Amino acid sequence: MSQPVLPTPRGDGSLLLRRIGIDTLQESVVYMHADCHVCRSEGFEAQARVEVHLNGRAIIATLNVVDPGLLAVDEAGLSNSAWRALNAAAGDRATVSHAPALDSMSQVRAKIYGNRLDAPAFDAIVADVAAGRYPDIHIAAFLSACAGGRMNVQETIALTRAMVAAGERIDWGRAPIADKHCVGGLPGNRTTPIVVAIVAAAGLTMPKTSSRAITSPAGTADVMETLTRVDLDVTAMRRVVEREGGCLVWGGALTLSPADDVLIRVERPLDLDSDAQLVASVLSKKIAAGATHALIDIPVGPTAKVRSDEDFLRLQRLIEQVADANGLNLRVLRTHGGQPVGRGIGPALEAHDVLAVLRGAAHAPVDLRMRALALAAHLLEFCGHSRPGQGQSEAWRLLDSGAAWAKFQAICEAQGGLREPALAPLREPVLAASAGYVAAIDNRRLARVAKLAGAPSAAAAGLELHVRLGDDVEAGQPLFTLHAQAPGELAYARRYHDAHPAIALEGHPA
Amino acid sequence: MSQPVLPTPRGDGSLLLRRIGIDTLQESVVYMHADCHVCRSEGFEAQARVEVHLNGRAIIATLNVVDPGLLAVDEAGLSNSAWRALNAAAGDRATVSHAPALDSMSQVRAKIYGNRLDAPAFDAIVADVAAGRYPDIHIAAFLSACAGGRMNVQETIALTRAMVAAGERIDWGRAPIADKHCVGGLPGNRTTPIVVAIVAAAGLTMPKTSSRAITSPAGTADVMETLTRVDLDVTAMRRVVEREGGCLVWGGALTLSPADDVLIRVERPLDLDSDAQLVASVLSKKIAAGATHALIDIPVGPTAKVRSDEDFLRLQRLIEQVADANGLNLRVLRTHGGQPVGRGIGPALEAHDVLAVLRGAAHAPVDLRMRALALAAHLLEFCGHSRPGQGQSEAWRLLDSGAAWAKFQAICEAQGGLREPALAPLREPVLAASAGYVAAIDNRRLARVAKLAGAPSAAAAGLELHVRLGDDVEAGQPLFTLHAQAPGELAYARRYHDAHPAIALEGHPA
Repeated sequence: MSQPVLPTPRGDGSLLLRRIGIDTLQESVVYMHADCHVCRSEGFEAQARVEVHLNGRAIIATLNVVDPGLLAVDEAGLSNSAWRALNAAAGDRATVSHAPALDSMSQVRAKIYGNRLDAPAFDAIVADVAAGRYPDIHIAAFLSACAGGRMNVQETIALTRAMVAAGERIDWGRAPIADKHCVGGLPGNRTTPIVVAIVAAAGLTMPKTSSRAITSPAGTADVMETLTRVDLDVTAMRRVVEREGGCLVWGGALTLSPADDVLIRVERPLDLDSDAQLVASVLSKKIAAGATHALIDIPVGPTAKVRSDEDFLRLQRLIEQVADANGLNLRVLRTHGGQPVGRGIGPALEAHDVLAVLRGAAHAPVDLRMRALALAAHLLEFCGHSRPGQGQSEAWRLLDSGAAWAKFQAICEAQGGLREPALAPLREPVLAASAGYVAAIDNRRLARVAKLAGAPSAAAAGLELHVRLGDDVEAGQPLFTLHAQAPGELAYARRYHDAHPAIALEGHPA
Repeated sequence: MSQPVLPTPRGDGSLLLRRIGIDTLQESVVYMHADCHVCRSEGFEAQARVEVHLNGRAIIATLNVVDPGLLAVDEAGLSNSAWRALNAAAGDRATVSHAPALDSMSQVRAKIYGNRLDAPAFDAIVADVAAGRYPDIHIAAFLSACAGGRMNVQETIALTRAMVAAGERIDWGRAPIADKHCVGGLPGNRTTPIVVAIVAAAGLTMPKTSSRAITSPAGTADVMETLTRVDLDVTAMRRVVEREGGCLVWGGALTLSPADDVLIRVERPLDLDSDAQLVASVLSKKIAAGATHALIDIPVGPTAKVRSDEDFLRLQRLIEQVADANGLNLRVLRTHGGQPVGRGIGPALEAHDVLAVLRGAAHAPVDLRMRALALAAHLLEFCGHSRPGQGQSEAWRLLDSGAAWAKFQAICEAQGGLREPALAPLREPVLAASAGYVAAIDNRRLARVAKLAGAPSAAAAGLELHVRLGDDVEAGQPLFTLHAQAPGELAYARRYHDAHPAIALEGHPA
């Protein structure tokens, strides 16, 4: 084999960028030739963290070293996400150097070792996280160190402030600005679009930003995305809110609390949620979005995220203290968390439920409607629109008159147009093996089944629940219907449920 | 642009494997075409964890989705490590499926939430880790959850046993089998090769397996690799030990406590070491290697790994309890940890120090010699070779007579031949800015400087220390000399030390 002639490196040590066409999701990867002069002179090895500089921008990326053939020695390949993050164009030349030492990691280690962190420590960590300087394993270590009750109130306040400070903060120039959040754990509990429609129809301002799913089969942003555009920037969001009084957008496309999105990306595969991260995540987004009045819905139930009175009270106290320290008016509402809400679990399936409630359809799930009305009623009173005790009747009036539905359509039109959510091509009922009554529904297992069926990334995937607690069921009657976009996922969800049934039947012995 | 004609998928759903030529270190990556029928039917997305099956072998890999051009739709590309792990050959066809659900992760979450884990939980986690089923972020979460004093004695015993059970265990068919370990934190403290040489020269059996660096600039395996082959398998190791009574091999090439190597790979970039992981790591290797008598050297000092009496006593107690529960005879030796040992810090530089002591060279570092003699003396008595009080003179005799040096050469010859360690091409002295005496040496910063200079992956890199605590220094006198193999690394180490000086001078004010 003849030796390849190595091109002379450019005097500035730069490398020609190539979009190598590999999708590594959000992780930035740079591919360099093993004989590349930069690799050699800098002493880079595979998996090293390097900094790529182009036109005043810089990103931190993981290095993959490639064998001859894939790249020339004076080229640097970029993963699709790295190419986007650098805003690179064909013919661009970049320089690559060692990533700067991650000084704030010593604070993460201090936290792992059980020490308390102060505000400057959280500021340093969160700024590095928001700037993409933390590799995923370091983020995983930080999240684990802060979980399991290891953050006190002062630390949670400091983390929340650091997360607000790391991004943009919207000032609406008026008050009240309403917001709501549900702590989750109840599949299908998609009240937010209905509440925003009612509250905005009442003339209040409710600029709602939502997240995508963290550990659940759908987040409000995933659901709304099956109905309209949700990836609005701050300018577009402002335009919608100024016109309609409300919006339902994805927080991740904004630059509000950007560290939160990075943390969530690692929390998701770890299936990890802690009180402190939860409170900091929720409140930093609310504060950055300019909210003055926030209502927090916390469902409590044996398989919900919050399972006991004790857990509820601890979380309530923490969230109130952190809100108070940040000048945010906040009320916590405890709701029943014994079973999923509505029928659908998964982005499009939940969107169908939301539309049914807003349209006043005969088949609309009553529990979803009642929950949304209760939350809207509280917000109407909390924000001073309705007098105490009058919120409930006002919320009913706005929903049943069609005012909320009209407002919802107007908001979706302003965000880019309302569309009907899709229906999955593959559907398969899961039948009761015996007769009985529904004694328990395991929210977590049901959520897992919906996720294995493809939700939330396959928007039409998930499941449609046909029974509720206490229902009588015949043998062979469908308990729920699996929806999937790919046969592999359908089979995978099915197999998991066969081994881990989510619905317990009792009584009616044969 | 014309539509490409997609090849018809094979009936068995298999994909043609291609060694794509990307080095991702130990992380297995599989590259698949976005339009690949398997991707589509299984609903795979970028960064999904998938299982690749070939000829009865299976590996878990991370999926990177590639744009058209790099691969055909019926091909699956493998990273170099995945190709090796699957033992793939050109023309092989593999099937790819969803990775099985990682059930043991619920135990890791329980640990993060502050619960105690029982033996079956550790067995399940460690078996999955050893089999490569844990993504790195999950390993990072597990390590963080177990750090900071969150493991009690029973859990540490269970973790240690699980780590032993996950791999091979050598039975030498005789006793005593000597072993030693230094808990580390002292750069340059490379006593092991000298101790093995003395103990084996005394006719005892000491089959020493060592690790590569975890958070330090060099592990004993890194140092020994600059002198001879260290990647022996169990059969080759047995041959060396039966012939010479001792060996100095890398534990990672054996299948002794294989989970340890996986954990260490993530511990290293996190720069994380916890008592429980440390004890489980050290003792699982010793037990699996068949040791009956182990001596543990724990240096204590303000910037060593163990910094206080309290920390020392806690670690001593834990290591003794876990050894006892496993039937291992163990003694702990507390040593001074105020400054580095010897002159060199970095694999080859430390090897030079070891050779100087063994050869009885005039310039051999006295502190390294004295420490090695003390440890050897303890082992000789502990294993019953010398009577109490006689170990010291026996150790001196074996070293000064040349018997230990002869044994060391014989061991290296048996392992594949003794060679002289390399010398780095780039060297730069770091000078004292002012006159004074050496009041403090920060082991951690000095280790960091050596690592930034390229150690341990660049074997000749590191630093050579010219001063010791209490030394008088003139302005402009060299404190240490940086050694590097690449200019970028030399500059990087230099920059870090300029910002974070490791050696404090006091007195002699101008």
